[in-house]
Amino acid sequence: MKTFSKLTGRLLGQPMFHLLEKIERFKKAGRDIIHLEIGDADFRAHQHIIDATKNALDADKTHYVNSMGLNELRDAICEYTLQTLDFRPRREQVLVMPAHAIIDTLIRCVANPGDEIICPEPGFSSYHAVLTYLNLKKTSIPLKEENKFCLQAADIEPKIHDHTRLLIITSPNNPTGSVLSKKQVRDIALLCQQKDIYLLSDEIYSRVIYEGQHYSCSFLDQCRERTIILNGFGKSFSMPGWRLGYAIGPVDLIQKMGLLFQTIYSCCSPFNQYGAIEALTGNQEVVEARIKTYKSLRDFILSEINDIPGITCTAPKGAFYIFPNIKETGLTSAAFADYMLKKADVALLPGTHFGQTGEGYVRICFTKKQDELHRACERIRNALKERVQCDQF
Amino acid sequence: MKTFSKLTGRLLGQPMFHLLEKIERFKKAGRDIIHLEIGDADFRAHQHIIDATKNALDADKTHYVNSMGLNELRDAICEYTLQTLDFRPRREQVLVMPAHAIIDTLIRCVANPGDEIICPEPGFSSYHAVLTYLNLKKTSIPLKEENKFCLQAADIEPKIHDHTRLLIITSPNNPTGSVLSKKQVRDIALLCQQKDIYLLSDEIYSRVIYEGQHYSCSFLDQCRERTIILNGFGKSFSMPGWRLGYAIGPVDLIQKMGLLFQTIYSCCSPFNQYGAIEALTGNQEVVEARIKTYKSLRDFILSEINDIPGITCTAPKGAFYIFPNIKETGLTSAAFADYMLKKADVALLPGTHFGQTGEGYVRICFTKKQDELHRACERIRNALKERVQCDQF
Repeated sequence: MKTFSKLTGRLLGQPMFHLLEKIERFKKAGRDIIHLEIGDADFRAHQHIIDATKNALDADKTHYVNSMGLNELRDAICEYTLQTLDFRPRREQVLVMPAHAIIDTLIRCVANPGDEIICPEPGFSSYHAVLTYLNLKKTSIPLKEENKFCLQAADIEPKIHDHTRLLIITSPNNPTGSVLSKKQVRDIALLCQQKDIYLLSDEIYSRVIYEGQHYSCSFLDQCRERTIILNGFGKSFSMPGWRLGYAIGPVDLIQKMGLLFQTIYSCCSPFNQYGAIEALTGNQEVVEARIKTYKSLRDFILSEINDIPGITCTAPKGAFYIFPNIKETGLTSAAFADYMLKKADVALLPGTHFGQTGEGYVRICFTKKQDELHRACERIRNALKERVQCDQF
Repeated sequence: MKTFSKLTGRLLGQPMFHLLEKIERFKKAGRDIIHLEIGDADFRAHQHIIDATKNALDADKTHYVNSMGLNELRDAICEYTLQTLDFRPRREQVLVMPAHAIIDTLIRCVANPGDEIICPEPGFSSYHAVLTYLNLKKTSIPLKEENKFCLQAADIEPKIHDHTRLLIITSPNNPTGSVLSKKQVRDIALLCQQKDIYLLSDEIYSRVIYEGQHYSCSFLDQCRERTIILNGFGKSFSMPGWRLGYAIGPVDLIQKMGLLFQTIYSCCSPFNQYGAIEALTGNQEVVEARIKTYKSLRDFILSEINDIPGITCTAPKGAFYIFPNIKETGLTSAAFADYMLKKADVALLPGTHFGQTGEGYVRICFTKKQDELHRACERIRNALKERVQCDQF
């Protein structure tokens, strides 16, 4: 008999995609929406990466390839890891696949239904969506504004139980932009070692740092025992459309993940992979210059947003987002986002997209053109002013 | 505590990838291996498709897009379906994703662990690999050479039980090249309607037909009730490296599949999708000309292979492969493939890669250069002759 599987009842998808569909309808109706919701930079991909991808197409790099990723790319990842994190993983520790899918693939390889996974909250919505559809138990650890949204080992320890398989950390964090300190990273890595659990270090924004530097939990085991680095090309190299990332982890686990990826997907697009090789080995100055541009945009929007009555925002140290506190406006996150879309034609995400502890905040992506950020802030300011005036009547 | 999940114990991967690794080692040792194992054409991708992909890169089509696929591509798929199968699905019936991953995504949306899925055998090894790792029961229906490897509704009916959720059919078939007749397709579609089960019609080779024509089980419900068409660009348009395909099915099921894909992967590469649009809407003459080339290669290798003592082969009506009977050589499929790789430097696949009923056969991909096919057949002939001579001593 025709039925859907039980799994289909637990599919949440990514809430942002629902919003994107709504925005599309508004735009079709002629509305001039400013997009601050999606985690993508409003800049062209770097020309040398586009050229490398096109050259690979011309060179007929369009056939099936190793399901673990091109060896040339895996070796480039090893070298890049040496340069950035001070250790060189073995090629066998590296699996190339879409960054987003690493979350699902890893979790399916280390946890059975009913097992527990610990995630900081607010955190990337896909962790929640994947854990929900897989029927795994999510143990949330609230990140608090008064702690600069940073995770403390002391908060994690009491949450680790017999069925805990994995801790997920994201530094720089999405949506808060917090960056863990050397000590915080050290304490977390030691705790995972002591408790013998896996540690997913989501470092997708590791290149996008404005203050201080990026520390990776992999320093302790160099991804040979329990740490799995998730990284990718979309955020650091402005290549979201290439759909490529990589995992670095213990050889036996990476082999299992590769086998699952091979069973389901076969392999990643070869010409896309040549673009990724160029990203890692080619011109880094333009990459750094773009991150400097992001920093000036961050400073700009911080100053504009903190100037709006009812909104306060601390400076994120990394990633693409500010996560302003909107509690004083009296609106919930969802109501604020909805109001701004309808009244101000500004699309942003409610903090609750990242978990219940995101209530009272909204996420704004600031890697956009400066005049657009300015217009958006003006519109938000006016919409709030109008609302206050309405309330007074 | 750190453990692997139970799922990892059921991961088979694709047997061909194991073989590819072995071949790589042989090639590194200086051996001149002729590749007849992988289902890829030894021809360049069509230039107009490469150009369209490059143009999309130049036009900065490198950002996040709708997780269901670009509307422009989905509409092109609807139009192409009208031209080729005589009905136009609604856009909401179409999901763009890597063709290979459709198998996993569909099965996870319609079956719970313990449910049964019916597959013809020999059949594509990934059906088996996906069903195994998902802990589903595979019910095989043997395809017999005396029936030209064609599936009969009468063979299916007794295999449908209460827990049967899905029947998978592949026409043209991989590895046998058999193509179902209009009556066979009609009987199967009616049976699935009567028994109220889903029907996955894997039509990945539907464009690659040498005799007769392609009939789709979708004729009965136009993918509105139970039929899910799996199609893609890799085989028909020589685009394996684009990693793109599509599913057409009932709206509610396609939405669930799309949500699962979105949860795990977000979306497909936009510039790759522009290549696919060009494949469907651009120059079809070069596509047809290439399929004519395949036909002449099929005729060539059939004549060569049937000329080798101990081997007989019927003509495939579609797809990329011949599936010769090697029983008279006295070798098992695995021993034959192994012997040819080691003694003749010819890589081909044992029929048992496609299920136990593939015993006594091997799969040879013939979309290669003609002189390479000739050299391969010479090598196979000589290796067998040498073996017979050794046996005589």
